[in-house]
Amino acid sequence: MNRAIINLGKNTLDTIHSNSLELLSDTGIRFPSEKALEIFKKHGFRIEGETVYFKERDINTTLETVLEAFTITARNPLKNIQIGGSNYVMAPGYGPPFIIETSGEKRNATMADVEIFCKLVQTSKHLDFNSSIVVQPNDVPVDTAHLDLLLATITLTDKPLMGSSVSKEAAVDSLNLAEIIWGKLEHPVMISLIDSLSPLKYAPEMIESLMVFAEAGQPVIIHSACSMGSTGPITIAGSLVISNATNLAGICLTQLINPGTPVIYGLGGSPVDMKTGGYLNATPEDAKHIAIVSAIGRYYHLPSRGQGAQTESFCLDYQAGMESAMMLATAALSGVNVGLHACGTFGSMLAMSFEKFLADEDLCGAMKKLIKPIEFTQEAFAMDIIKQLGTSGNYLMEDHTLERCRDEFFIPDLSIRTIHGKWLEMHPKEVHARAGMLLERRLARYEKPEMDPEVEKDLLSYINRKKGA
Amino acid sequence: MNRAIINLGKNTLDTIHSNSLELLSDTGIRFPSEKALEIFKKHGFRIEGETVYFKERDINTTLETVLEAFTITARNPLKNIQIGGSNYVMAPGYGPPFIIETSGEKRNATMADVEIFCKLVQTSKHLDFNSSIVVQPNDVPVDTAHLDLLLATITLTDKPLMGSSVSKEAAVDSLNLAEIIWGKLEHPVMISLIDSLSPLKYAPEMIESLMVFAEAGQPVIIHSACSMGSTGPITIAGSLVISNATNLAGICLTQLINPGTPVIYGLGGSPVDMKTGGYLNATPEDAKHIAIVSAIGRYYHLPSRGQGAQTESFCLDYQAGMESAMMLATAALSGVNVGLHACGTFGSMLAMSFEKFLADEDLCGAMKKLIKPIEFTQEAFAMDIIKQLGTSGNYLMEDHTLERCRDEFFIPDLSIRTIHGKWLEMHPKEVHARAGMLLERRLARYEKPEMDPEVEKDLLSYINRKKGA
Repeated sequence: MNRAIINLGKNTLDTIHSNSLELLSDTGIRFPSEKALEIFKKHGFRIEGETVYFKERDINTTLETVLEAFTITARNPLKNIQIGGSNYVMAPGYGPPFIIETSGEKRNATMADVEIFCKLVQTSKHLDFNSSIVVQPNDVPVDTAHLDLLLATITLTDKPLMGSSVSKEAAVDSLNLAEIIWGKLEHPVMISLIDSLSPLKYAPEMIESLMVFAEAGQPVIIHSACSMGSTGPITIAGSLVISNATNLAGICLTQLINPGTPVIYGLGGSPVDMKTGGYLNATPEDAKHIAIVSAIGRYYHLPSRGQGAQTESFCLDYQAGMESAMMLATAALSGVNVGLHACGTFGSMLAMSFEKFLADEDLCGAMKKLIKPIEFTQEAFAMDIIKQLGTSGNYLMEDHTLERCRDEFFIPDLSIRTIHGKWLEMHPKEVHARAGMLLERRLARYEKPEMDPEVEKDLLSYINRKKGA
Repeated sequence: MNRAIINLGKNTLDTIHSNSLELLSDTGIRFPSEKALEIFKKHGFRIEGETVYFKERDINTTLETVLEAFTITARNPLKNIQIGGSNYVMAPGYGPPFIIETSGEKRNATMADVEIFCKLVQTSKHLDFNSSIVVQPNDVPVDTAHLDLLLATITLTDKPLMGSSVSKEAAVDSLNLAEIIWGKLEHPVMISLIDSLSPLKYAPEMIESLMVFAEAGQPVIIHSACSMGSTGPITIAGSLVISNATNLAGICLTQLINPGTPVIYGLGGSPVDMKTGGYLNATPEDAKHIAIVSAIGRYYHLPSRGQGAQTESFCLDYQAGMESAMMLATAALSGVNVGLHACGTFGSMLAMSFEKFLADEDLCGAMKKLIKPIEFTQEAFAMDIIKQLGTSGNYLMEDHTLERCRDEFFIPDLSIRTIHGKWLEMHPKEVHARAGMLLERRLARYEKPEMDPEVEKDLLSYINRKKGA
């Protein structure tokens, strides 16, 4: 049972689908890109201005060639990830321009911060892949920041990458850098995020990036989300139909360009704060959309992407933990396949925090333990021991217990497990101070993963050449 | 999809059931109560000493008469609750002997604390029923504390009650007090918690209480839980079979006494801390058991009870929010019907906190919003407005938005939703201080619910008579 979507059965999904088709054929989707419009035109789509209209047949054809599951190759093949099925893979924050310091003060993020986050991703037991914009650094030129970001994630970590979709050029650079490592790209080596603009359109740079990645057969997350009550109806049903129609149009474009391009289905929806017109994060309505996106993903036989450990809080208080856990638990239990923002974000995705990153890692680990299949072997049932110990046994010193006691349970790195008296005397006691100490230990443990020096030289010279251009 | 129990399908549930039957017939369950043994004997069960052995047929007969759903009548009939189906009802903490103060210091709980918690339950938008031991008060005699607790919950609130199961006498008193209000009890007016003792036995007072409530046809939660690695195997599969066998035996006794007695199926499992031998709370293993109990409940066509907003933390930090939300989100999404400990507990259920109670209430409210069925009416799809606004609309000033803007979204009472600059200047800023202010407002708002003065007099004289005896 999943009560968040208890009334989102096949019939309702059919209605959402048919309402989406109605919007696609009657209202259409705006693609402000000459190249995209050319492609649609070539395939016989009706176009008016920048608006493309889709028939049911087009969407059916699209859904025939998308993949239900695929693998992303990492620089370290032991860290390849499977996308789809019952897998759940996680990446840290994506896009915030600020850092919130331990003091609560806010400052601009820098490349030095990016490098620290890369080191945390590399040493993380729970994160599966990198973000391409873990923060937006303020101390490098905007036009070439994606190069610095890509270089950091490629060289400082050996986990799978995200490509940069901030512009067509950034997408091309992502592929070129990947080819320096892997040669001609014959399988997925990165995931890239394509966000639509609600209602019912895409921004030019996103469409251009989408086309670059699709041509190269590299996976894209196509993600639509309304601010409910401003960029979409205040109702989930209404916002959902806008987002789904927009997604289907974007997915259609990927498959027109390159049938079989791996796509991850992403959809969100956040309330507008009626007092300020601002957009709220990590609400139960947001969490509900996480369950919804997994259901729609399964309906279309596509892997799904849900939101991560977001919060409206700016410090490591109850609210931050509660909102982050509500979001991730919903993703974990609902069957979402890919999670961005799984570690580190504060304040409506305004800022990243190193301490929050470490606190969220305990949450990510707990979620992975929560969804680990239960062992139902004869050994695990332990019927012989149960019968032997009967109604008065103590299992503590049994071999069955001792053999498993190191690995059977999840052990957090930051959360405490102690008695009240010891907690009262703990130094440091507050979670942000303990996180600060853990951060030092983590960074001390970091080792740069091996890379062929020739490859690293080539990556650097590509980047320097592009920066000089 | 529910990934916490992704491999707990029908076949595995059948194996858990048959392994449980094997323990019931080969190892048996200890019932240290002459009266219980008499009942089993009368029905032809094999008994050795205090151990009762069960055949498959006995369990099948038991499962024929239990109810899938039922209603608990409240003193205020507008507050009746439905147990079962897709409903999720919540009560606050149950049993902690201490209060943790805002300072972090621990002190003994008193009847004054009980009264404050009753007032919070009564004014709660999210809690559905009372606990019979929200804390264990230290300033009244232990033997008659249940009378003080029952009087407080009966008179200070008009939501459904829990009966007291601390002794046979307490159970009888619970029924007698209820009869002063309702006359002869012809339908459920309370829920009572019967905990077993792992492995494979019950404590005498629990069995005696179970029998009192069953005779009166009043619902019982039958709950078994192993400390994994001490009172049960370290493995989920092993502990599960012990708990399930013990539950089935207890349920059997209720149905032998009074077929059709409403039963709620409860099952937990917590890791033992291998460093201390102590028992850990709010772990992902605990959360996994919440998903498991809901699956087993459905398997036996019984309402289920899962744990609540527990934590190992002693203050309103990230860990407290994270662990509480992991637990409640799992219960909400998995389909658990009844949650105890939904508000207020700290430190492995050692203590209650007024501030934690208020923080958890936001969580409870968010969970209820999360599982509220989505509106899929034509009005909610808003297709006309979507088509009209097309690819460049703003929904903020639309009638569709304005008509719904007050009720569409969940609004927390304690959590903040603001911008960074305003948060930095907020007074008071810390969540525990804000909770303290909210507590004052809540208590100022409290009004004692109406009660016939004659009834209140009768309740008091019953209690005074019992105390004098």
